[in-house]
Amino acid sequence: MSLLTVGSVAFDALETPFGKTDKIIGGAATYITLAASYFTQQNNLVAVVGGDFPQDMIGLLEEHGVDTKGLEIVQDGKTFFWSGKYHEDMNTRDTLITELNVMEHFDPIIPNSYQGTEYLMLGNTVPATQKLVIERLAKRPKLIMLDTMNLWMNIALDDLKSVLKLVDLLTINDEEARLLSGEYSLRKAAKKIMAMGPKTLIIKKGEHGALLFQDDRIFFAPALPLEEVFDPTGAGDSFAGGFIGYLAATDDISFENMKRAIIYGSAMASFCVEKFGTERLVNLSKEEINARVQEFVKLASFEIQ
Amino acid sequence: MSLLTVGSVAFDALETPFGKTDKIIGGAATYITLAASYFTQQNNLVAVVGGDFPQDMIGLLEEHGVDTKGLEIVQDGKTFFWSGKYHEDMNTRDTLITELNVMEHFDPIIPNSYQGTEYLMLGNTVPATQKLVIERLAKRPKLIMLDTMNLWMNIALDDLKSVLKLVDLLTINDEEARLLSGEYSLRKAAKKIMAMGPKTLIIKKGEHGALLFQDDRIFFAPALPLEEVFDPTGAGDSFAGGFIGYLAATDDISFENMKRAIIYGSAMASFCVEKFGTERLVNLSKEEINARVQEFVKLASFEIQ
Repeated sequence: MSLLTVGSVAFDALETPFGKTDKIIGGAATYITLAASYFTQQNNLVAVVGGDFPQDMIGLLEEHGVDTKGLEIVQDGKTFFWSGKYHEDMNTRDTLITELNVMEHFDPIIPNSYQGTEYLMLGNTVPATQKLVIERLAKRPKLIMLDTMNLWMNIALDDLKSVLKLVDLLTINDEEARLLSGEYSLRKAAKKIMAMGPKTLIIKKGEHGALLFQDDRIFFAPALPLEEVFDPTGAGDSFAGGFIGYLAATDDISFENMKRAIIYGSAMASFCVEKFGTERLVNLSKEEINARVQEFVKLASFEIQ
Repeated sequence: MSLLTVGSVAFDALETPFGKTDKIIGGAATYITLAASYFTQQNNLVAVVGGDFPQDMIGLLEEHGVDTKGLEIVQDGKTFFWSGKYHEDMNTRDTLITELNVMEHFDPIIPNSYQGTEYLMLGNTVPATQKLVIERLAKRPKLIMLDTMNLWMNIALDDLKSVLKLVDLLTINDEEARLLSGEYSLRKAAKKIMAMGPKTLIIKKGEHGALLFQDDRIFFAPALPLEEVFDPTGAGDSFAGGFIGYLAATDDISFENMKRAIIYGSAMASFCVEKFGTERLVNLSKEEINARVQEFVKLASFEIQ
């Protein structure tokens, strides 16, 4: 089934305890579509970049089967740029530079050939823009998944609540779940958030795994304990891309299949952090992914009658 | 098989966001033996209390099948007393009062009838005392498990390292694993710690579950997301008690059985935190425990070919 991803395509400059990079390709939609590309063939992208965005980076997405018809290029504009620095624990980071540039007036135009998409992934961006995308789709997708962050809870809460009413699945981290719900207990937080609209909620906990909530059901997904996290940038988006790419490929949105999708998403995130930026994500084989998924199976399986 | 637990039996006074208690029964060995009592019949205790320790609290242990022959009562001494206050996140706590009292000169005397124990649980206490216990056993147990804490890493590291050489299994939390190894990555930390002696390591992560390491194998155990953590005191000891109690009852120290034991231990910890002190732990049925274990099975199970 076809997947449409809307979100940022950007330049990132990163610094971690292991080194630093100049401007490399980044952005939520980049990680999402790259991760999804290992699962689904119909991988459509709506995003905006400036005239400074190199053609070979667009080529990189296309090589991975990403349809870039919806990638608007504003010739006299500059691409969204984010620069950040991670500390030793890799859970906290300082934003050094944020230049919205062309993202500031991002008007998500949906190409006609993308209409009728069954799966919609709204990468983290302005909630009003996310809502606009849903309104511009002639037919409601089978599954709408939304990622967001604390920033929008602080400066655009009403818009966020408005779009939350329209989506099926929300993914946020544990801190954001606590912020959005005002509840410390994640179980209580999940109930309050699901009452805001999304029937399904994924709470990402980084090295501690992820929790999937739907009605009264909960699934606790493990994270692979890694020797080294080289660069956590894009881990959450790779997770989301692997997750929804797997759902789109299997076209099964049951709770049982979402559990599998979380494992595939976690596998993609575990690859992502092994190198800088998208470096590891663009060089994967299906065999590597399946072997990594088997590591998760071994990691989490036990037998009790 | 018989289990011997050595550790503190104490008074605790607790304050959490949900209320506070006067002096109630506490101490590592109390929680461990109570949790283990639901699994193993031969549940022996070596500890020390003062003349102020009420007979009915000893009776409480005995009602749960704990053999208190090894519980020394120093008539003119006072029982170890700890008082602490938890904050909203329940992961951090302030120690308000620590009165070692009779624990300061604790000389662990092993009753003859305890000799030949197959399973030994050394609750968190002075490392030199833990070592003394091992030396006083005529026959080496099949499994020696040790719990410790950051305090001993800071003030008695040599003694701790000396006893670590003698044990099979160490249980500590993630912060302590990082402190003891000097490694941030838990996978690297585990390797270094296992090289210090224990072939098996359990890293407890509270609400994030636990990791079991042995050779190159890793098991990621989930924690049950709870609506409310009422009082976290004793959770780690209840975990340890359920774990080693299950091992002793099944007399199987394979990695596969340790996985099951972790789930039983996690179930006991999840009960423990539902009420103040030992309140929930002393009023459990096997049916409740089995039902809770099934919740863990549902929580963590997924199927991937």
